[in-house]
Amino acid sequence: AYQKHAHDFFMPEALREELHKKAEATFQVMPNSQLPTLDSYHTLVALDTSHRKSATVFGYPSWVYKATSIKNGSMYTLRRLEGYRLTNERAIRSVKDWKRVNSGSVVSVVDAFTSRAFGDSSLIFVTNYHPLSKTLVEHHFANISKFGNRGVQSVPEPVLWSYIVQIASAIKAVHAANLAVRCMDPSKVILTDKGRIRLNACSVLDVVQFDAQRPLSELQQEDFIHFGKLILSIATNNLSVMTSHTLMVFVDQLSRTYTPEFRDTVIWLLTPAQTPDTRTISNFLSGIATHVVDSFDSSLHGNDTLYSEINREVENGRLARLLMKLGTINERPEFDGDTMWSEQGERYVIKMFRDYVFHQVNSEGKPVVDMGHMVSCLNKLDAGSMERITLTSRDEQNVFVVTYNDMKKQVNAAWAELQKPARR
Amino acid sequence: AYQKHAHDFFMPEALREELHKKAEATFQVMPNSQLPTLDSYHTLVALDTSHRKSATVFGYPSWVYKATSIKNGSMYTLRRLEGYRLTNERAIRSVKDWKRVNSGSVVSVVDAFTSRAFGDSSLIFVTNYHPLSKTLVEHHFANISKFGNRGVQSVPEPVLWSYIVQIASAIKAVHAANLAVRCMDPSKVILTDKGRIRLNACSVLDVVQFDAQRPLSELQQEDFIHFGKLILSIATNNLSVMTSHTLMVFVDQLSRTYTPEFRDTVIWLLTPAQTPDTRTISNFLSGIATHVVDSFDSSLHGNDTLYSEINREVENGRLARLLMKLGTINERPEFDGDTMWSEQGERYVIKMFRDYVFHQVNSEGKPVVDMGHMVSCLNKLDAGSMERITLTSRDEQNVFVVTYNDMKKQVNAAWAELQKPARR
Ligand SMILES: Nc1ncnc2c1ncn2[C@@H]1O[C@H](COP(=O)(O)OP(=O)(O)OP(=O)(O)O)[C@@H](O)[C@H]1O
Ligand SMILES: Nc1ncnc2c1ncn2[C@@H]1O[C@H](COP(=O)(O)OP(=O)(O)OP(=O)(O)O)[C@@H](O)[C@H]1O
Ligand SMILES: [Mg+2]
Ligand SMILES: [Mg+2]
Repeated sequence: AYQKHAHDFFMPEALREELHKKAEATFQVMPNSQLPTLDSYHTLVALDTSHRKSATVFGYPSWVYKATSIKNGSMYTLRRLEGYRLTNERAIRSVKDWKRVNSGSVVSVVDAFTSRAFGDSSLIFVTNYHPLSKTLVEHHFANISKFGNRGVQSVPEPVLWSYIVQIASAIKAVHAANLAVRCMDPSKVILTDKGRIRLNACSVLDVVQFDAQRPLSELQQEDFIHFGKLILSIATNNLSVMTSHTLMVFVDQLSRTYTPEFRDTVIWLLTPAQTPDTRTISNFLSGIATHVVDSFDSSLHGNDTLYSEINREVENGRLARLLMKLGTINERPEFDGDTMWSEQGERYVIKMFRDYVFHQVNSEGKPVVDMGHMVSCLNKLDAGSMERITLTSRDEQNVFVVTYNDMKKQVNAAWAELQKPARR
Repeated sequence: AYQKHAHDFFMPEALREELHKKAEATFQVMPNSQLPTLDSYHTLVALDTSHRKSATVFGYPSWVYKATSIKNGSMYTLRRLEGYRLTNERAIRSVKDWKRVNSGSVVSVVDAFTSRAFGDSSLIFVTNYHPLSKTLVEHHFANISKFGNRGVQSVPEPVLWSYIVQIASAIKAVHAANLAVRCMDPSKVILTDKGRIRLNACSVLDVVQFDAQRPLSELQQEDFIHFGKLILSIATNNLSVMTSHTLMVFVDQLSRTYTPEFRDTVIWLLTPAQTPDTRTISNFLSGIATHVVDSFDSSLHGNDTLYSEINREVENGRLARLLMKLGTINERPEFDGDTMWSEQGERYVIKMFRDYVFHQVNSEGKPVVDMGHMVSCLNKLDAGSMERITLTSRDEQNVFVVTYNDMKKQVNAAWAELQKPARR
């Protein structure tokens, strides 16, 4: 058994705040929402930050909601394609292949179905929900409309390498499942945690453009070009890269800010295959291997940090339980006439212990409020420490010397008694 | 504000247990220890699991202890080389380069000094402490002495690839700092968490063999050979690989169980350089890039899991604080004659609320013990929910309808009053 100090007992504010904000976002609801309830999802909340109706990416306007599953009560994200009419049942079945893709850098696809609940004919994609996500457009281009550009600040090269590694990892998982990403618009890649990005809206184009029946290898090769454009647009701070046909103008800007290795990597991505066989994600990964291992190491460091945070927090659950036990046992009206709890009774010492933990006073009889003292007492109680304490009754007539271990037995006995179905 | 269920409130048992065991190991002390106190470290506890005196790895018998730093109260690991006499001050200064190595796959080196506290002349290395670590010998070869071998079970190839990636990542960090690992014995690589390994005892040979002044490039090239032997010994389940000069006999065994790619990777490591310039850790990483990205992805998944665990736990800290507040406020002897707390007083409702949270009874007056109810009440109290509850006094003479928000204000007012230095 060991002693903890109150200050290393609670989590650093930054991480705590982040988690709180995410929890709040997750559970936030819109009181007077006009949004419908679907067959399997209720309590829809719009996630789109603008009402701009744009059909650029999918050919249909799309809207994003978070919603609660009727089946398991968990939160999911729904993407609705407005006005989509399904003509071929097989189109929507292509989504099931996406369910097998399990990558930390792809938003997991859960389901797809059509719905008339919105008053039109809509196509709905269900994916995992990542609270407080931002698209790369929102994250990197948010101030552009106001000032025309981000100013002098370009995105640091290590951030871009980290994006490259994560997207390459995503593409590896997607291509290995015999699929292609198809859509890598900066508005369809989301930042879900500090530095963590995930490909979003995968599988949508597979359904919507099902009839075109383009060969997989062609789509996979195109993924590299989309990938290159995505990185180029963030590096040059220019969204028009995505639709430009004169990419070399943008590539030439890279040399000002970035290393030749970075520039060459972007060029590799943008250069269509002479011999498609050698233009694979494995080949690309070999070329950027040292960056992959850097990302790996920083992820391991992230893991270590989370581990040490969780270590502090895990004690809290134990203490909360113990405090609830004490709250439940002490001062129960049913015990009022019970001789066990009277000054002569066995349980009386629990009351005195409670005073010892919570009702300390100083030599002048003034309250001393010290959470560190409480935490330390509760930890010793939980551990059943053999340390002795002296408990004095309020009238100072009774003095007991007990160990925490004695108290632990007493508390557990009283608690067990309360659990008995018909004890009195 | 949202409601939590008691069952997703506490952490899954497996992770909780692991963290508990580690905390216990960290804080465990030996009551009648004969071990000395050093200048900056006290409360030494031996970590070696055998008393076998072995000088094989370093040329001196070594002993491992955990100890508490006098400076910051944190736990560190000390490795003591028994009977070492420092002849050249510069030897020990070489350790400072190691402090700059910051890799998730290397045990961080903190300090080195000589000491006479053990009654001899000892050399002490201070490193980070990783509770409940096992060496790869302990983990993979523990049963060998009993049964002669592990039986039919060989280590699965994905585990070995994960080791290869982690060690390669460690070597990259070490070589980049113009150092060499030098010692990669299976007893000097430790498993610190599920699947996580770290190179241990780095820097020791730099001090002990300082006088040999071997060129760095030679030592770095040798690292690859040691790396290859380490992997080969685990894959073939045979520790004599480490000292063998006929490695091909062991390499030939690999084909039975492992892929050609794995075998070729081991051969690459074991084959001395024809042209040392191309035999670099970057080159090696390019060759195993797809495995690096697999490890990266599984580390990201690990991060996601820890995040969702910590999410559950973070609420506990809040609740524990709130419970301590309630415990501190209620039933204070000083309040006994206070009209605020009497049946007519303002604070009386806090007592009734306490009964509502902790002292529920069923229609027959039997105690109802429901932690879910308590957790939910406390969460609403913390959030200051506008939900109304009806509180009835014990004699059923008083009935109040209040919101959780009213209660939150009352509790905070009472708590604030207790904190005032001279309130009564
Ligand atoms: N899986 C998800 N989990 C949480 N939030 C998401 C998820 N997918 C998208 N979002 C958020 O929903 C919002 C809208 O996403 P959307 O893809 O529609 O972007 P957009 O900027 O509106 O692009 P478009 O103009 O194509 O609709 C963004 O803020 C995004 O971060
Ligand atoms: N940094 C550390 N943190 C926690 N435990 C450690 C650390 N370093 C070593 N240990 C543990 O201490 C024990 C002894 O380590 P040591 O390196 O002496 O291995 P060994 O098997 O005794 O080898 P040798 O025969 O060379 O002494 C092992 O169980 C190891 O896991
Ligand atoms: Mg949108
Ligand atoms: Mg040892």
